[in-house]
Amino acid sequence: MHLCISLAQLARKGEKSNMKVVCSVNPGHCTLISYNFLLLIILQLGLDTVESVWPLPQTFITSPERYQLKPQSFSFGYRRHLAAQHHCSVLDAAFKRYFSILFPDYASGNDTIRFSENEIFTLTISLDHHDCEGYPNQDSSERYKLNVSAGQASLNAETVWGALKGLETFSQLVYQDDFGSYYINKTNIEDFPQFQYRGILLDTSRHYLPVQTILKTLDAMAYSKFNVFHWHIVDDPSFPYQSRTFPDLSNKGAFHPMTHIYTQSDVRRVISYARKRGIRVLPEFDSPGHTKSWGKGQPDLLTPCYKGGAPSGTFGPVNPTSPSTYQFMASLFKEVASVFPDTYIHLGGDEVDFYCWRSNPYIRAFMHKMGFGVDFNKLETFYIEKIVNITSALRKTSIVWQDVFDYHEQHKSLSVVEVWKQGCYLCEVRKVVKAGLRVILASPWYLDQPGPTHNWARYYNVWPLAFKGTEKQKRLVIGGEVCLWGEYVDATNLSPRLWPRASAAAERLWSNERQTSSVDKAFQRLQEFRCKLLRRGIQAEPLDVGHCKHEYQSV
Amino acid sequence: MHLCISLAQLARKGEKSNMKVVCSVNPGHCTLISYNFLLLIILQLGLDTVESVWPLPQTFITSPERYQLKPQSFSFGYRRHLAAQHHCSVLDAAFKRYFSILFPDYASGNDTIRFSENEIFTLTISLDHHDCEGYPNQDSSERYKLNVSAGQASLNAETVWGALKGLETFSQLVYQDDFGSYYINKTNIEDFPQFQYRGILLDTSRHYLPVQTILKTLDAMAYSKFNVFHWHIVDDPSFPYQSRTFPDLSNKGAFHPMTHIYTQSDVRRVISYARKRGIRVLPEFDSPGHTKSWGKGQPDLLTPCYKGGAPSGTFGPVNPTSPSTYQFMASLFKEVASVFPDTYIHLGGDEVDFYCWRSNPYIRAFMHKMGFGVDFNKLETFYIEKIVNITSALRKTSIVWQDVFDYHEQHKSLSVVEVWKQGCYLCEVRKVVKAGLRVILASPWYLDQPGPTHNWARYYNVWPLAFKGTEKQKRLVIGGEVCLWGEYVDATNLSPRLWPRASAAAERLWSNERQTSSVDKAFQRLQEFRCKLLRRGIQAEPLDVGHCKHEYQSV
Repeated sequence: MHLCISLAQLARKGEKSNMKVVCSVNPGHCTLISYNFLLLIILQLGLDTVESVWPLPQTFITSPERYQLKPQSFSFGYRRHLAAQHHCSVLDAAFKRYFSILFPDYASGNDTIRFSENEIFTLTISLDHHDCEGYPNQDSSERYKLNVSAGQASLNAETVWGALKGLETFSQLVYQDDFGSYYINKTNIEDFPQFQYRGILLDTSRHYLPVQTILKTLDAMAYSKFNVFHWHIVDDPSFPYQSRTFPDLSNKGAFHPMTHIYTQSDVRRVISYARKRGIRVLPEFDSPGHTKSWGKGQPDLLTPCYKGGAPSGTFGPVNPTSPSTYQFMASLFKEVASVFPDTYIHLGGDEVDFYCWRSNPYIRAFMHKMGFGVDFNKLETFYIEKIVNITSALRKTSIVWQDVFDYHEQHKSLSVVEVWKQGCYLCEVRKVVKAGLRVILASPWYLDQPGPTHNWARYYNVWPLAFKGTEKQKRLVIGGEVCLWGEYVDATNLSPRLWPRASAAAERLWSNERQTSSVDKAFQRLQEFRCKLLRRGIQAEPLDVGHCKHEYQSV
Repeated sequence: MHLCISLAQLARKGEKSNMKVVCSVNPGHCTLISYNFLLLIILQLGLDTVESVWPLPQTFITSPERYQLKPQSFSFGYRRHLAAQHHCSVLDAAFKRYFSILFPDYASGNDTIRFSENEIFTLTISLDHHDCEGYPNQDSSERYKLNVSAGQASLNAETVWGALKGLETFSQLVYQDDFGSYYINKTNIEDFPQFQYRGILLDTSRHYLPVQTILKTLDAMAYSKFNVFHWHIVDDPSFPYQSRTFPDLSNKGAFHPMTHIYTQSDVRRVISYARKRGIRVLPEFDSPGHTKSWGKGQPDLLTPCYKGGAPSGTFGPVNPTSPSTYQFMASLFKEVASVFPDTYIHLGGDEVDFYCWRSNPYIRAFMHKMGFGVDFNKLETFYIEKIVNITSALRKTSIVWQDVFDYHEQHKSLSVVEVWKQGCYLCEVRKVVKAGLRVILASPWYLDQPGPTHNWARYYNVWPLAFKGTEKQKRLVIGGEVCLWGEYVDATNLSPRLWPRASAAAERLWSNERQTSSVDKAFQRLQEFRCKLLRRGIQAEPLDVGHCKHEYQSV
């Protein structure tokens, strides 16, 4: 309620001082009257001159009053009491990155240029919690306040992760006029994400993605304020993760044991690069299905399939009946838990084909002994429970694909369910939250499917909370995820397939649903954002006929 | 018939010397018996070890006998009597390009390395016609013979354009073993294209394409043996061609008059680059529709639309009633004819909306005066006839989109019709050839539409001659064209959208239909070709799960 009051104040202030309220209101807490009042102001002041920020901040007040920024006299700084403590490495690195982004035409080298005092512009940061050495997690605040006025801007955030979001917003506010001069308008922003989990899944098993491709994707993710990189690192076709404990997994299971792997150093680099951009790295080691490549380096892990009473030479899912399976899994996940600092881990559990288990007499005998009858779902449950217990003991929160939820009678061991199947996905979301579990929604954002970019609205017009449920249930929908499966995606087409379509999902997951319900209003802003991505070196494909002032050159 | 006899001889020789006939036969001239005989040999010898050449040569005999190639001791040469005359600049340039393609890992710089005489390998070229200074045209022979044996290869072609095709094939025959050594197998190839016109259309009006993007596409085209770059250079959204005669067309009609134009020098560069790769550049100046951008720099060219008896301020197609229109067009096409050396020119003529013409009282009066009644097709015919006459006087063969053929009663002024509409396109092809006109088929190859790459077979399984008609009529189908319209395509996504899907069309247009009717057999070869494209720096997207030995790195 505090926010609403300050918004109304700001709106009134805006009326007097020729500021305009571009969007505002936390609708969960504000009354309809104040919402309409603000909407009226928005309409009166006109939306056509809205500064382009994507995703749209929760509260965004801007004015025609503008200030010139000069690279020579622009600086980032810490608020004095903070600087007195020590600098923040994550922010220091971000200052360097964003300086280049703010002033793309500026070639430094002549630091002796004189400038007058009144040309100085400083963006001063203050943090409520000085947590620069940690990692972002599911509960990290990303809230920030940004105030731009003559000669200065102040950015306040609870955490460094919120400050990074504010820096991104600040960078999007700066523009160049036709003569190349840089400007920023008087602006007041209060911002926070609608959903805490905003992920992108990359699949490095069906095609190997060079580390550079992953890093570039992390850059682009930060520009759209995504905060989770879901690394679907291994699957049937290849096992590129180079395990310390089980080096044969990649030696024998990768497309190539030297050139198509992620070494420990590669993984550390990805995690560190992501952290500096406020992005969590959430690994998925999917089992018991999707594990063909695991079997090459770990004999006896997979179930031998039988044909005509004898082993056929082919293998099925992980063998859930053998104690050695769980010893192996415990060792592997112990390593994974130490390599990936995130508190979440994705266990997969999707698309298990029972054909091979059914063919194997030892599996059937085990089923009989355990009293499972012929219900292979019970066998899968038995397996998943064991794996969940292994990861729980490692203090990790496990995510599973919806299959695990769908086929299990008991849900008490589950924590987070990722909904991926097409059809009435909100029906599924509702079922999961009714069971008291958290949900990540992926179904509407399967971007590996090529589609006309101008259909971006399909990814924009998704309402994850548009189901009947209590407030408490809706809070269990922790976010959503864009999935870029790898069957037909590799480094050649990843960027244009992902961007700017994924940015449509990003706004849905960050911004206020009511303020971003119009595709038409979003379109121009998304086009401008796409041009920004281009200028920052991201190969984002066009939304329609037209051009950007700075086209993509490196072809 | 000569070819068939030599093929049979080669096939017999192959049986004795462990050579295998991979594919062969010019089916138009060979008997069914010899075809089946050869097919039998193919099956006996196995297709799984076929050398990968894309598009598949007409006759391709290879042997397991292989020769090592060393960059230090490899050379290109001219057959002695040719060298005695003078070198050929097009081939000299091609030697340089292909040396890098043949030996991608080779860093030159140490020319003092000693090598023994028996390590020398020379590819010797001979041409029947020494036409190095000209341009390829519709009648240029692209036929070549390539023979690879110990220490040498000979490439014979009628023209330099055929020799370029042979060099491309040679480059695809060279491979590296696991230790990085280069090899080529004993090979005998006789090759020529099935269709003379094998084009790719790029649209530089809906999005501006940097010259570098066009040049890179020309490189990739040469790898797939495409030979026509159909440059849809202007259209409604922008007029990037910088005209000498009418500079205002791009000054006012381009997206930007400085950064989003093709200068005369840019155009010369594109034409020269294309020529060196055996590719014709065929410009399209589409009218009377698709000309909105023309109107900005050429007042009075377009038809003013009327509403309620007065001009509405909007404009329609080119005004066909005004003599100044034809003076302008004559001047523009005179310039275009001198800038673009190709003997063909594309006049467009598609999708003319009669709404604006109908609204304009002066147009209606003209119709009345000319006795056209209310048949606006007659007005369009009147216009197109005038434009065709202008270009005929400039000794250019004109191509028009099928609309012009469909709506005109008289076809005698038309020469070449490009079929682009979906539906029963072969019905249309048949109609056009029955009228005695030449056809270019584009309908099945509209690649601007994104689609799953694994649907490449959709572009492969096209049979341009699968209609009832005489041999003479079928010879009027001069080829086909991949169209990459620009609504949703620019430099960010052009390459992965075009390649390798366009290569599927390339094989259909180059290779023998009977030898390339199996999608399954083509698949492995296309995958290997796609990896070659990647290694040559073309961002060709993946066809399926898997990897290339050398992935695309520059991301």
